[in-house]
Amino acid sequence: MLLNRAVLLASPAANTVFTTVLTRGPVARPEIARITGLSSAAVTKAAKPMIEAGYLEELTRAERTVEGAGRPAHPLAVCADREFFVGVKVTADELIGVVTDLRAQVRAAHRVPVTDRGVDQVVAGIAALVREVSAAYSGRTHHIGVSVSGDVDRAGGRVRYSPFLGWRDVPLAELVGRATGSTVTVENDVKALTVAEQWFGEGVGTDSFALATVGVGIGCGLVVNGRLVAGGYGVAGEIGHIPVAAGDGPACHCGGRGCVEAIASEEAIVTRARRAADDPHLDMAGAIDRAHGGDAAVRAVFAEAGQAIGLGLAAMVNLMGPERVVVSGEGLAAYDLFEEQIRAAFTAQAFGAAARCPLVVRPLPWEEWARGAAAVGIQSLFTA
Amino acid sequence: MLLNRAVLLASPAANTVFTTVLTRGPVARPEIARITGLSSAAVTKAAKPMIEAGYLEELTRAERTVEGAGRPAHPLAVCADREFFVGVKVTADELIGVVTDLRAQVRAAHRVPVTDRGVDQVVAGIAALVREVSAAYSGRTHHIGVSVSGDVDRAGGRVRYSPFLGWRDVPLAELVGRATGSTVTVENDVKALTVAEQWFGEGVGTDSFALATVGVGIGCGLVVNGRLVAGGYGVAGEIGHIPVAAGDGPACHCGGRGCVEAIASEEAIVTRARRAADDPHLDMAGAIDRAHGGDAAVRAVFAEAGQAIGLGLAAMVNLMGPERVVVSGEGLAAYDLFEEQIRAAFTAQAFGAAARCPLVVRPLPWEEWARGAAAVGIQSLFTA
Ligand SMILES: [Zn+2]
Ligand SMILES: [Zn+2]
Repeated sequence: MLLNRAVLLASPAANTVFTTVLTRGPVARPEIARITGLSSAAVTKAAKPMIEAGYLEELTRAERTVEGAGRPAHPLAVCADREFFVGVKVTADELIGVVTDLRAQVRAAHRVPVTDRGVDQVVAGIAALVREVSAAYSGRTHHIGVSVSGDVDRAGGRVRYSPFLGWRDVPLAELVGRATGSTVTVENDVKALTVAEQWFGEGVGTDSFALATVGVGIGCGLVVNGRLVAGGYGVAGEIGHIPVAAGDGPACHCGGRGCVEAIASEEAIVTRARRAADDPHLDMAGAIDRAHGGDAAVRAVFAEAGQAIGLGLAAMVNLMGPERVVVSGEGLAAYDLFEEQIRAAFTAQAFGAAARCPLVVRPLPWEEWARGAAAVGIQSLFTA
Repeated sequence: MLLNRAVLLASPAANTVFTTVLTRGPVARPEIARITGLSSAAVTKAAKPMIEAGYLEELTRAERTVEGAGRPAHPLAVCADREFFVGVKVTADELIGVVTDLRAQVRAAHRVPVTDRGVDQVVAGIAALVREVSAAYSGRTHHIGVSVSGDVDRAGGRVRYSPFLGWRDVPLAELVGRATGSTVTVENDVKALTVAEQWFGEGVGTDSFALATVGVGIGCGLVVNGRLVAGGYGVAGEIGHIPVAAGDGPACHCGGRGCVEAIASEEAIVTRARRAADDPHLDMAGAIDRAHGGDAAVRAVFAEAGQAIGLGLAAMVNLMGPERVVVSGEGLAAYDLFEEQIRAAFTAQAFGAAARCPLVVRPLPWEEWARGAAAVGIQSLFTA
């Protein structure tokens, strides 16, 4: 089975054809030729071994062509069940695991708590979670994607720095690989989500798009000219550290001032809401309750957060010019409290035609983060 | 001669080999193979017709190899004199023209004033300037690049909007083509400069870099993953409209507030310096004189401008992660008055390892802008 994977990497044409069908859904050979610029003969030649290896199938759906000739079209489709992938998102408190098929559809999900953030304990926890979640797919999952927030070196398989786990330079891919016997890819969690969106979500069919996440941190994944932006020094997409209120804004943990994250992260909102409500024990749920109850000072805290996020999005769109922006994250629980300000600030600050860029707002359950990690595993099929 | 150009487009390999030699300078075939991933045989095969057509030549410089075998290396080099290009930069007051060779080296330069900004008058002025500057290269220049600030549709050959000329939707490529009998490419002026830098300057050998210009406006050209960022809605690189002082900053002509350009453009500096010095007739030269003379209030205006530019650069670097940033522009005449603040604000606000991104500061005479336009013409050789 693993050997058969070689057909996906056999030639650039094979790779291109498979990726096209994978990301676009069932598509007829002439359409593949049009999209990829390959000749019809090259498409047919590239598809053949992938059909034989069970990665692609020919649908028999008969369609009348536009010309009315009645020649049946046989679109090619990915055999979603040909292979399964495990995705694991590591948070400070929990490990979330999913199994997806080859089209990144979630087939099983499971969570376990993190009680000890030591490397060995977390690796053992991941291995147990993988066994549990993939039990029904035994022997049919060969690749695990693991996503962690922080500075992750995907090529080297290392977590360079994870503030919330307190890890520095951990060879996580190797450790999880040894504990599970599978091939492992590690990636930054926001980048992993962006890959899932690029291949199977809002990014399909665009040259460039952005995914921004709002919550504990404010992050952003960017795809420009069809490729994820990695950053020359490993830093990119740091929308949270755009200084939208450098003059009079609060200090940020990054050393800067007036950063979006210093105004709109969960911690920033709670800190500011405590001050506004004069209640040092207020938590996020309490702040949301007070705002919903009409507390004007706490409502203003959310409004300022929304404004900072909208300005950060506008700065990003003015620079990068994405065709579409997905806004997501656990912070969206309070979305009704700041949506208006996000959109108003974005529209006021977007430059000219950039204001036409749609903001697609979507909740983000933890399983979606794990699915992102699985998508990185799927992507690695093509770069193995 | 024109027919021979077809060899540059004959195959993707030909295109890749020529571009590699053009942008890297003389380079031996094995090195070309290593950089491009082509086989040695493919490099040799692709180079042959280009040598015959006079675009490439084999240098006879004998070099001992590392192995000491003494086998002479014959690096391939571009024949710079094989073809010449005209570049024209259009400003509100002047047309600046240059002739460059195939390696974008300036061989002749000339300027003429703009006395009437009407489309016909400017087109006639460009045609006269082209005749004048390229007189010594008669019959040897076939391509003209024209750069204009504002919203330019390169593919369509149109200036969609140029605020300072008062133009909307002008088919400039067609008009200049008709007036000169040459092929014409039009491009936004900052993007044209970025192309010159990407192919023949600081961008060579990088995957991503940025060029920021400081002056009448604050602009930025971005190259990410080897390609210029165009923007899904035609807007990208608008570093001037990052809201670095949204809370308490001045209103900007874009409709936003606290934009870099509202604090650091030439007009913004003059406006703020007039207020600081209580002199409604102060101009830029006068403001620089006062600052050099020690006027603390006017010095603070320049310092604030530097801080805004540094914050804008940091926001851009945090998002895009370029390997290098070139800072240039006519505004650098006052550079000693704000360099310290640019660097300090950049360093304070750059996120983690992004602070390692070097800022390369360089003056930018008008002829450099015209050379950028010529570089766009050179680039168009490969997309004709
Ligand atoms: Zn920050
Ligand atoms: Zn503005």
